Amino acid sequence: MDYVYGPGRNHLFVPGPVNIPDQVIRAMNRNNEDYRSPAVPALTKILLEDVKKIFKTTSGTPFLIPTTGTGAWESALTNTLSPGDRIVSFLIGQFSLLWIDQQQRLNFKVDVVESEWGQGANLDVLASKIAADKAHTIKAICIVHNETATGVTNDLAAVRKILDHYQHPALFLVDGVSSICALDFRMDEWGIDVALTGSQKALSLPTGMGIVCASHKALEATKTAKSVRVFFDWNDYLKFYKLGTYWPYTPSIQLLYGLRAALDLIFEEGLDNVIARHGRLAKATRLAVEAWGLKNCTQKEEWFSDTVTAVVVPPYIDSSEIVRRAWKRYNLSLGLGLNKVAGKVFRIGHLGNLNELQLMGCLAGVEMVLKDVGYPVKLGSGVAAASAYLQNTIPLIPSRI
Amino acid sequence: MDYVYGPGRNHLFVPGPVNIPDQVIRAMNRNNEDYRSPAVPALTKILLEDVKKIFKTTSGTPFLIPTTGTGAWESALTNTLSPGDRIVSFLIGQFSLLWIDQQQRLNFKVDVVESEWGQGANLDVLASKIAADKAHTIKAICIVHNETATGVTNDLAAVRKILDHYQHPALFLVDGVSSICALDFRMDEWGIDVALTGSQKALSLPTGMGIVCASHKALEATKTAKSVRVFFDWNDYLKFYKLGTYWPYTPSIQLLYGLRAALDLIFEEGLDNVIARHGRLAKATRLAVEAWGLKNCTQKEEWFSDTVTAVVVPPYIDSSEIVRRAWKRYNLSLGLGLNKVAGKVFRIGHLGNLNELQLMGCLAGVEMVLKDVGYPVKLGSGVAAASAYLQNTIPLIPSRI
Amino acid sequence: MDYVYGPGRNHLFVPGPVNIPDQVIRAMNRNNEDYRSPAVPALTKILLEDVKKIFKTTSGTPFLIPTTGTGAWESALTNTLSPGDRIVSFLIGQFSLLWIDQQQRLNFKVDVVESEWGQGANLDVLASKIAADKAHTIKAICIVHNETATGVTNDLAAVRKILDHYQHPALFLVDGVSSICALDFRMDEWGIDVALTGSQKALSLPTGMGIVCASHKALEATKTAKSVRVFFDWNDYLKFYKLGTYWPYTPSIQLLYGLRAALDLIFEEGLDNVIARHGRLAKATRLAVEAWGLKNCTQKEEWFSDTVTAVVVPPYIDSSEIVRRAWKRYNLSLGLGLNKVAGKVFRIGHLGNLNELQLMGCLAGVEMVLKDVGYPVKLGSGVAAASAYLQNTIPLIPSRI
Amino acid sequence: MDYVYGPGRNHLFVPGPVNIPDQVIRAMNRNNEDYRSPAVPALTKILLEDVKKIFKTTSGTPFLIPTTGTGAWESALTNTLSPGDRIVSFLIGQFSLLWIDQQQRLNFKVDVVESEWGQGANLDVLASKIAADKAHTIKAICIVHNETATGVTNDLAAVRKILDHYQHPALFLVDGVSSICALDFRMDEWGIDVALTGSQKALSLPTGMGIVCASHKALEATKTAKSVRVFFDWNDYLKFYKLGTYWPYTPSIQLLYGLRAALDLIFEEGLDNVIARHGRLAKATRLAVEAWGLKNCTQKEEWFSDTVTAVVVPPYIDSSEIVRRAWKRYNLSLGLGLNKVAGKVFRIGHLGNLNELQLMGCLAGVEMVLKDVGYPVKLGSGVAAASAYLQNTIPLIPSRI
Repeated sequence: MDYVYGPGRNHLFVPGPVNIPDQVIRAMNRNNEDYRSPAVPALTKILLEDVKKIFKTTSGTPFLIPTTGTGAWESALTNTLSPGDRIVSFLIGQFSLLWIDQQQRLNFKVDVVESEWGQGANLDVLASKIAADKAHTIKAICIVHNETATGVTNDLAAVRKILDHYQHPALFLVDGVSSICALDFRMDEWGIDVALTGSQKALSLPTGMGIVCASHKALEATKTAKSVRVFFDWNDYLKFYKLGTYWPYTPSIQLLYGLRAALDLIFEEGLDNVIARHGRLAKATRLAVEAWGLKNCTQKEEWFSDTVTAVVVPPYIDSSEIVRRAWKRYNLSLGLGLNKVAGKVFRIGHLGNLNELQLMGCLAGVEMVLKDVGYPVKLGSGVAAASAYLQNTIPLIPSRI
Repeated sequence: MDYVYGPGRNHLFVPGPVNIPDQVIRAMNRNNEDYRSPAVPALTKILLEDVKKIFKTTSGTPFLIPTTGTGAWESALTNTLSPGDRIVSFLIGQFSLLWIDQQQRLNFKVDVVESEWGQGANLDVLASKIAADKAHTIKAICIVHNETATGVTNDLAAVRKILDHYQHPALFLVDGVSSICALDFRMDEWGIDVALTGSQKALSLPTGMGIVCASHKALEATKTAKSVRVFFDWNDYLKFYKLGTYWPYTPSIQLLYGLRAALDLIFEEGLDNVIARHGRLAKATRLAVEAWGLKNCTQKEEWFSDTVTAVVVPPYIDSSEIVRRAWKRYNLSLGLGLNKVAGKVFRIGHLGNLNELQLMGCLAGVEMVLKDVGYPVKLGSGVAAASAYLQNTIPLIPSRI
Repeated sequence: MDYVYGPGRNHLFVPGPVNIPDQVIRAMNRNNEDYRSPAVPALTKILLEDVKKIFKTTSGTPFLIPTTGTGAWESALTNTLSPGDRIVSFLIGQFSLLWIDQQQRLNFKVDVVESEWGQGANLDVLASKIAADKAHTIKAICIVHNETATGVTNDLAAVRKILDHYQHPALFLVDGVSSICALDFRMDEWGIDVALTGSQKALSLPTGMGIVCASHKALEATKTAKSVRVFFDWNDYLKFYKLGTYWPYTPSIQLLYGLRAALDLIFEEGLDNVIARHGRLAKATRLAVEAWGLKNCTQKEEWFSDTVTAVVVPPYIDSSEIVRRAWKRYNLSLGLGLNKVAGKVFRIGHLGNLNELQLMGCLAGVEMVLKDVGYPVKLGSGVAAASAYLQNTIPLIPSRI
Repeated sequence: MDYVYGPGRNHLFVPGPVNIPDQVIRAMNRNNEDYRSPAVPALTKILLEDVKKIFKTTSGTPFLIPTTGTGAWESALTNTLSPGDRIVSFLIGQFSLLWIDQQQRLNFKVDVVESEWGQGANLDVLASKIAADKAHTIKAICIVHNETATGVTNDLAAVRKILDHYQHPALFLVDGVSSICALDFRMDEWGIDVALTGSQKALSLPTGMGIVCASHKALEATKTAKSVRVFFDWNDYLKFYKLGTYWPYTPSIQLLYGLRAALDLIFEEGLDNVIARHGRLAKATRLAVEAWGLKNCTQKEEWFSDTVTAVVVPPYIDSSEIVRRAWKRYNLSLGLGLNKVAGKVFRIGHLGNLNELQLMGCLAGVEMVLKDVGYPVKLGSGVAAASAYLQNTIPLIPSRI
């Protein structure tokens, strides 16, 4: 089964699925259980309460759906909207593209606001659309908080500000797949109506749980939303929440215990410390990229992502070769460039349960791969730049002081 | 986290999720991996080939969808049918009821053929409907192979015979959730167009993978099926199959390795031996029920299920109390009676990776619980009846001869 | 690696190594750690304090030695005695025999007090020896609390009474390998000087940790004990205890965390409840043996062991065939008859983290095997007898009330 | 239990216990088994055959003893020698010191040949002793192949050459604890009589198995060796080898399966490739140390160890503070300086299942710690030096080509 065995650990630096902490692997190392016994609902109840904290919401209603991020997207859309509804969506990279594709296939009328890949969502266009929409024909704004393909983080507070400024009632639906638990995210404060993530991203679990949180307004919208839905229907969940049995169909027992462990680790570190750590690792990565003389795919600092860095390679290099070689020679897993930036960028994911020296291993590996493929990098330069920053900023591990 | 701790092992005898063999737990005890590396597609390719064996198909196309049985149902329907399509569906228990509910909510026109709970699908009604449908307005027959709520197994070969007899082109969609890998199931021979199961049933994995297999005819049907679908769209999978990358979105790495281990165990034992073992355990269970002087919810022998036995309790006993007490006193998990048979039956699941002495523990426990709740059972009687049969029929374990 | 694979779980009923609870397997599922970091000593300190509770001592000094029971024996002897020292030791079965063999090879002068296998230690002989030994030439009494080969439990309180009666200063060394954490054991109250067990017995861990506890008097004895010892030398441990680093050589990190989890489970259940559970399972087993018409190898009730039952088979049956067949046909692991009782008894171990229905599975299996080998057992009879007793005595699981 | 939690993985770079590969952790994640069933002897038989390969012996007899390296030492000495026997032993660091201490406590007459810490064994002294010993009063030469405290590797072939030159019959006993499976080791070619290692070193298992291999001559010596031994007595093993049951007392089932997995990984990589990898990582480490402007504790290149590098810090720095801080701030575990070099050196263990980028993480961490404690290191310098070498020498991972 390990037919691609290499000595030592795989250095997993794709922007998801990410490294699972040992504590979580341990918690999931278990047999199935009867999910209709009193134990599983009791666990679920606590989880639903605790999971709200990672969204920074007190009033939202969470759903733990046995699906992936793609399914979570579908659940967000079909529960709140009707076919033909007009929505505004921002095309800034591969994942926003895929979501828009889904929106169109689900028969919504999508105003696609496109930016060059490497730029953030064009909020000026949003503002003019909202300003113009006196009739409130726009039913929802769909935005990817962090575009994983280009390493671009959008300004959600600004979106809220625009909607508020024009007192526009559009729903505010956010893909937080590569942001929640890693970037600053404030569901209540920013008036987000549906926020969602996947278990295999910053929560550092295996794939298989779509975590969706809905505002009161989103729940109200379900009453008139005519999109056909069964598996993804929140009302089936709400019915079982009321019954206290919680599950309309079988959950993964392992993922429930895994989520418990993952949240415990996040709360022990402190969510804001987790976010700060992501900021630190991201900044160190960007300093390394700069030291290598390479460009960040993200065009402006305001959009810099703290969970993934897309690095642009010179035209004479194929970035896929970097990814291939990293895996074949250094047991290092990097992210490919996707679609428009295929061959042009490779990506370093720095999200989830990760520390500074793990990142150093990755950066040293990238340097060697760059040299392998003919880029005249100065070996050690990126690590030096990153270290200089980190050595000044890493806090002591609180439990060890 | 183990706040409902009891000494010793939980005796898990609900009809799913079932006991996971240690070999599978071990195989899943692992970190995430980059699913875009060459390793995961290579593994997936083999899995897709091997998983066809549990359906007994060589021509079918399998899909490993990150979802539950409910999602697998939805995938079977929306990929092959259009809203308004007429389908025939059999209501014989809670799970067929739920599937019918889904069919209706997905806007199909469902001819519901109802039987008393405890009886099998009424195939006479099917025959007359098919006979009458010269215009071929019936687009699909939907049938649950094994109704988990009542322990009723339907005769799939007979369904095929009816369709063939009238040369009716309706699609033949089968819920094999509590049958595949445990009951005799022959996708190709019986001309089944879509068959599906969930990982947490006889495959003995955690929940989270819906395994769906489609015939050529079913794949053809996708081209005209107008049901809206994105997450469940088989074409997204087929596109990635062609690319050789296999996954339109992130799979659970752990479930892939788990499936590999689960299939290895099934093939090592031999699928037909696995099925024979299920027959043996089921027969033993029914003999015990008889010895206790209780009735099987399943009304005729032809429908007896080899994966779950629903036991009818006397009117003066609440079967829920049996289930509660089994868990609270004996660390034994039994299945509740659902819906129409709530309070009237409890269920013993005997599917998955299970052996005879595990079942004996369960039967001894049921006896004690029956006595606890006031039923005048003769302790040891069920175990005696089951043992008498098993002692004559259990083969030596081949690897130990 | 699983070349003797059989479906379902192995039913492990040898008297050690015993079933490891899932919680403990989980806790041990981990990487190595630097045992010189502050974390491991901190964990060790708590473990040393907590492990005393299973000996019921407050004044004893525990040692967690990376060895087996045989090594723990050696540590008990060599740390407290000098070559040529006279000791009294009781030969009542295979394990006492092996310990005596060790005592002789370590050059002690052993007064062997032999009993028929199936009887307890002859304490009358002890009394006369002690009475006669005015000169205090007897330096130690060595006794196996529970002889695992025959299922005989000796009366430790009576030993202490004899010593006290004659005010004899002999050290009181006790093999508690198959007793501690399962039988009533009171180190302080009974004035035991060295008590020991192995991790793979009632503590329900893997093999590899010899747990030894020494009284003040035993520690004093180390100062004059001339037996050569290095690996097993307690003083090396005591030196590191004082330093606060605790380990003279590398411990198994996994067993330390496993011990933590094992103790947590025992304390959660309550040590006295654990002991009561062992009493219940043992009584049920003996009732089954009686119902089968077979004899207990233990000759008198006062010696009945609550951790292992040795069952005598009729002369026309080879008990080894029972053990072989149990494993080959039923995936049931029973204990062989050893040495003098080889071929004549088989053994059911009922110790460790085990519950009633697990035992029922075992008893049903034994019945079928007995029938297989030609013994005219009434199938179900043993289970019935055991159930009748258990159904009256099993308490509700406290965490589930 | 994880009260010293820090985000991300611990970077374990002590020279043992070392990182356990996930494959091995998985293989050990299991319940106990009856070690008297046919399965465990069958597994043991294969293991005993395969384990000889890591010693490069075909004629040796291996013993898998449930103990640590300290116990393995004791087993080597007591099985082959008698109290009062004269042996030559080399004191070159803390572990040779501890072994000598054991030799003396076991009542051998030890000719201690001392070198300055940082130097190898003085083989000139050996040669003169051997030359002078016409009467063959020297019964054994005891030598630590790789002194873990100072990172010094001794020349075993040279020892053999001396013995052969003088046709001296002394036994040749070798501590291979931090060498076997990592350094070039040839038991048969070098005429080693007893070689030993511990599971937690280059084999990359948990602690708990002492692996000892004895030559024919060593086995002959057991017949006259008068040292008292029981637990460590090889003859007890040999007796059970003959019986085909293999175990005189209970082995750790988990370590047996773990050893199976560990050997599988080593054989898959190829033992010589494993050794070459250790050479590569060690060389990279030494280049980093040089780049930092620090001295290797090992005084000459001929003694450089490929499993551990002891780094001398400037007098104004306390090396313990480096180790403490590495753990507290960077989740990096380094080895302390021991005894004579306490405070003066810290140690980087680079043995076991480890790859280049893991080492880069460690080196980057050491650089940051050095700066933390006031040493004027140029950040990135060590990583650069190591990378320059590694980027030229790392082979592609064979399974991924």
